[in-house]
Amino acid sequence: MKKIEHIGIAVKDIEKSNTLFSALFGKNEYKIEEVISEGVKTSFFKCGPNKIELLEATNSNSAIAKFIEKKGEGIHHIAFAVKDIKQEITRLQKKGFTILNSTPKRGADNKLVAFLHPKSTNGVLIELCQEIE
Amino acid sequence: MKKIEHIGIAVKDIEKSNTLFSALFGKNEYKIEEVISEGVKTSFFKCGPNKIELLEATNSNSAIAKFIEKKGEGIHHIAFAVKDIKQEITRLQKKGFTILNSTPKRGADNKLVAFLHPKSTNGVLIELCQEIE
Repeated sequence: MKKIEHIGIAVKDIEKSNTLFSALFGKNEYKIEEVISEGVKTSFFKCGPNKIELLEATNSNSAIAKFIEKKGEGIHHIAFAVKDIKQEITRLQKKGFTILNSTPKRGADNKLVAFLHPKSTNGVLIELCQEIE
Repeated sequence: MKKIEHIGIAVKDIEKSNTLFSALFGKNEYKIEEVISEGVKTSFFKCGPNKIELLEATNSNSAIAKFIEKKGEGIHHIAFAVKDIKQEITRLQKKGFTILNSTPKRGADNKLVAFLHPKSTNGVLIELCQEIE
C-alpha cells in the first residue's frame, strides 16, 4: 500500500456536492467521469497527494444508490494505491481477507480496482487500485 | 488543505483491530495513545504520506461509543492537514460551513484540531488538523 489514493463519498446530487466541495477545497473538481458499468457519475478533487471522489448513482441498482438508501450520504470507501494489484490480492487472501472481485476490474480514473469485503475489515469498504499504464 | 492527514476508523476492540490492520498494511501500528479528554484510545498506522487512526471508546459518553451504537464500526472521519487552522476555520465559516469547535482543541498525535459539522458537508465528519510545533 503506497498511500491513500482517494476517499469515495456517496452523494445524492453531484452538482450540488461539487459546489460544496469546491468551497471546502477552495478549488474546483478537476475531472467528471461516468462509469456506466458501475452505474455512477463521479467527480474528482485533488488534495496534495490524495483525491476525493464524489459518487452519484445513475440508476437504482447501483451500489451507491443502495448505500445511500441504507446509510444516507457519506463516506463510502477508502482506496489505497498499490503497485501490483494481483500480488496484493494474493497476499491479502492468504492473510484471510475476503476479496469481492479477485480479478481486478476497470474503475474510474484509469485504474484497475478490487474491493475487500467490509465484513473482513471492521466495516470499512477498502478498494485497492493500480494505475493502468 | 495540504493532504489527507488521516482517516479515523471507529472500532470496538482496538487490540483485535490492530492485528487486522497490521495484516492489511503488512506492518504494525507505530503509536498507541489515549486521549482522556475525548474518551478514546487510538492507534496509528502509516501509509505513505497518510495515516489511519483507529479509535476505541474508553467510556460510554465518548463520541466513538455513540457512533458505534448508532452506525456500527467503520469510517468515522476524514482529517485534512492544514497550515494555519485558525485561518482555515475563518475561511470555511465565511463559506457557510458549520465548525463544531471554532477554537481549535488539542487532539491525538500532537495536533490542534477542529471539526466541521457533517450536516454542512454531505454527511462527512471532517477534521482540520495542524501539527503543534
